[in-house]
Amino acid sequence: MIHGKNILGFTVSAEGKQKHQTVNSRSGEILAGEFNEATLEEVEQALEKAQNAFELYSKVSGKTRATFLRAIAAQIEGMGEPLVERCMAETGLPEVRILGERKRTCFQLESFAKVLEEGSWVEARIDRGDATRAPVPKPEIRKMLRPMGPVVVFTASNFPLAYSTAGVDTAAALAAGCPVIVKNHAAHFGAGEIVGQAIQKAAQDCGMPDGVFSLLNGFGFEVGQALVKHPYTKAVGFTGSLQGGKALFDLAQSREEPIPVFAEMGSTNPIALLPKALATRPDSIAETLAGSITLGMGQFCTNPGLLVALAGEELDNFVDAFTKAFVASTPQTMLNTKIRESYERLNAQALEQTGVELLALSEKVADAASNEGRPTLARVMGKDFLANPALHQEVFGPFSLLICCSDKSEMKTVLESVHGQLTSSVMAEDDDVSAFQDCIDVLSRKAGRLIFNGVPTGVEVCAAMQHGGPFPATTDARFSSVGDDALKRFVRPLAYQGFPEELLPEELKAENPLEIWRLIDGGWSRDSF
Amino acid sequence: MIHGKNILGFTVSAEGKQKHQTVNSRSGEILAGEFNEATLEEVEQALEKAQNAFELYSKVSGKTRATFLRAIAAQIEGMGEPLVERCMAETGLPEVRILGERKRTCFQLESFAKVLEEGSWVEARIDRGDATRAPVPKPEIRKMLRPMGPVVVFTASNFPLAYSTAGVDTAAALAAGCPVIVKNHAAHFGAGEIVGQAIQKAAQDCGMPDGVFSLLNGFGFEVGQALVKHPYTKAVGFTGSLQGGKALFDLAQSREEPIPVFAEMGSTNPIALLPKALATRPDSIAETLAGSITLGMGQFCTNPGLLVALAGEELDNFVDAFTKAFVASTPQTMLNTKIRESYERLNAQALEQTGVELLALSEKVADAASNEGRPTLARVMGKDFLANPALHQEVFGPFSLLICCSDKSEMKTVLESVHGQLTSSVMAEDDDVSAFQDCIDVLSRKAGRLIFNGVPTGVEVCAAMQHGGPFPATTDARFSSVGDDALKRFVRPLAYQGFPEELLPEELKAENPLEIWRLIDGGWSRDSF
Repeated sequence: MIHGKNILGFTVSAEGKQKHQTVNSRSGEILAGEFNEATLEEVEQALEKAQNAFELYSKVSGKTRATFLRAIAAQIEGMGEPLVERCMAETGLPEVRILGERKRTCFQLESFAKVLEEGSWVEARIDRGDATRAPVPKPEIRKMLRPMGPVVVFTASNFPLAYSTAGVDTAAALAAGCPVIVKNHAAHFGAGEIVGQAIQKAAQDCGMPDGVFSLLNGFGFEVGQALVKHPYTKAVGFTGSLQGGKALFDLAQSREEPIPVFAEMGSTNPIALLPKALATRPDSIAETLAGSITLGMGQFCTNPGLLVALAGEELDNFVDAFTKAFVASTPQTMLNTKIRESYERLNAQALEQTGVELLALSEKVADAASNEGRPTLARVMGKDFLANPALHQEVFGPFSLLICCSDKSEMKTVLESVHGQLTSSVMAEDDDVSAFQDCIDVLSRKAGRLIFNGVPTGVEVCAAMQHGGPFPATTDARFSSVGDDALKRFVRPLAYQGFPEELLPEELKAENPLEIWRLIDGGWSRDSF
Repeated sequence: MIHGKNILGFTVSAEGKQKHQTVNSRSGEILAGEFNEATLEEVEQALEKAQNAFELYSKVSGKTRATFLRAIAAQIEGMGEPLVERCMAETGLPEVRILGERKRTCFQLESFAKVLEEGSWVEARIDRGDATRAPVPKPEIRKMLRPMGPVVVFTASNFPLAYSTAGVDTAAALAAGCPVIVKNHAAHFGAGEIVGQAIQKAAQDCGMPDGVFSLLNGFGFEVGQALVKHPYTKAVGFTGSLQGGKALFDLAQSREEPIPVFAEMGSTNPIALLPKALATRPDSIAETLAGSITLGMGQFCTNPGLLVALAGEELDNFVDAFTKAFVASTPQTMLNTKIRESYERLNAQALEQTGVELLALSEKVADAASNEGRPTLARVMGKDFLANPALHQEVFGPFSLLICCSDKSEMKTVLESVHGQLTSSVMAEDDDVSAFQDCIDVLSRKAGRLIFNGVPTGVEVCAAMQHGGPFPATTDARFSSVGDDALKRFVRPLAYQGFPEELLPEELKAENPLEIWRLIDGGWSRDSF
């Protein structure tokens, strides 16, 4: 099933001499399949194909693109057990999680298909002309969102399906009308390729242009950098570390023509634990938090890595319940050895910092032979946190730091000091809200999603989701990488002035053949005119 | 009336030792008023004030912000004749143009006020929760656009009102809920300050927070760079040269926290002159084009600097009519000596390039003593244009280059070779459209606004306008710097998850008190629920 070659549109290619293999995350055993590193010539070919495909694909109707997205979902389902097993082997994630993730991946494709079929997402605006206006006639102008061009996607280690080859970046770009070139992830080349084959098949079956999708294997930085620097590339999607995302962002901004990079990077997702809430329901908050921090071994971008509370009796009582709940959590296999080693290093570094004390570990120790990590909870005083930038960094994995603030003012200062975030949360009772409104305001300025009496893990796929926040959580807080609006990342507005009806896109024709919502002379309607 | 000091919120400040004056563009005579260069301490104070103001101003309702914008317009009108005269003196622009520009400035403020009052611009999305969903309950999520934070605005030399102190960047940022710090333009410090006083007065009268607006005088780069680098600054608006805009963009991207820069820079606004159109109506196209190229001495970002046509009899006949119309144009005073000198230098450089021939000059010679520039038309063959990057650069002023292509294929190659543009246009008859569809497709990929049988000068202020195109026309083709959507540049989405009704912004409350359009569970409505 796995050929190990690069997918270049409707063909495959294996010109590179370097070959790579992937390993079972749990056992370390080498898995079947040798993956050919893409050459710079293959990068060039993929971009040439994508550019040619763009001329055709950008004219394919939304309804036909929807059919294509649905065909991709069907092909992924059709890959069956071998895909599930490969994902499990290459990531160490349990079957139930992979099955759920496959469902999510198909749901995302389906959601974009629905958005395309409904059609109003293009933000059509029509201002009718007036030839009689003085001193100059008013021109007729109609505007809608149009695709940018070829998009390069870097996939995530922690979601082998939902944020990888056919994940939300690829699905959004294809939905928007942009060809996609995916840089296959070295940790799960096999799963990436199986999904790549599914997309290739769907593209052929649906009569899409050759080059609408390519998948290149890249182990080091060379392939990725060449993809980002290529003049045909018009946007980049990335999910991963701050270091990796920032490097690609800087590279893209240093091009002769800078291009948008949508990098979703680190986040510590602070949660303010307000005193009345801690006093009222210490056990349920403790249980919920311990569950959120250790879910999926904390390998989520929304993992709550910072907990901020006021020192006092309420906190002490809560900490008792919290450590008890935390001790009961269990070590599990991490995504790969690199991630486990990084977790152990950053975890140990954090515990070595001035004023940091270990609060709780899972009772069960981690089995290093099975690449397990151990859930860890630490505590520090507000003043030590404020004085030490190292404590503001994300520790990717099941680690969280409880920050005890001496008073409300210090709490506000602590919250103001944290980096930009994907999410911020508050656990509060009514009395807390009035007393800590300024702290909640600070949290709202720090993040893209603000959660009340809940935890940030579990990112709903829906129109109202915002998965993107101020730097360094993402490189562009104006856009979301989850939910329907994710396709807005790969489009730009194009205004048509004075065009005859027959030359306008369907979305902008007077008779409104697609029956979409449009802003006509300042009023929203689905009318023709 | 002019104090020459920096406006810091509700106060003025003149700590700097350097003082500057402005000159009459036509006569070179020094104008009244000495302008104190802002110090780095004053920059710091302006940002501190803006940051404090943001906490309050971001909570001011849209209706109240609308009142504030209208008050600014009224104050600008109230500045009367002294403002008009100062604009004329500092820019050399005629009274009718300044009066028109003042009207446009007030219209822009008024347009944003209407958008705020209607309220639907916040893109409210609501996905209702479902506690019964398996395997996990569906959370309730509601999202809307929220202001980013303090915005720094760099103003334009060619629009002392409409793209300056209270121009579209300032109006859009204030509309969005962001405090603004304007870097006053050294060529028209006086006009800038008068408008700054108008905004200061309006802010006080409307009870806006101190620091919602500041205006700093800066002659060199120091003040501007300090403003862009300051951590409180969250976005930058700029209108001017490619060199200036790109430098600010690079500076902003090199910050520890990169921030969006909306720089509107150079554009040559290519027009494809298709053969049937040239054959059918040579005189009217000639007249329209000559008028557009010389309008306002070509000192518009939408000035058509490149004309692309097929060599042949139609073109030869057209060129006769075109040169005749062009010769009749008249030299006029340019904005300032720096701009005239730059025009003369770039004009002369273009004429020196291989294969470039002078086609027409205005019959009347330019009066250098009155700082006049002379309209100039040149011609080059497609192959010489393709071989010479220097010819792709903008010549800011009344200059245009006609590119004669040997065949349709060369025409497509020429169009593909041009930079990203604010606009691209096509002069065509029906037969042209079918024969040259691929060329029109290329034009649509190059620009933010595509014009059919019209010229790009005259940028309508309306919801459907797109003033922003691929780099280097702007640094962010996803946004417009003219029209209602211009305020979208200064906001980011914020999702609220699980919030009780009473803590949500009005825009997201179930009862929909503002009666705005919202996307609720996938359907657009103005309903409550």
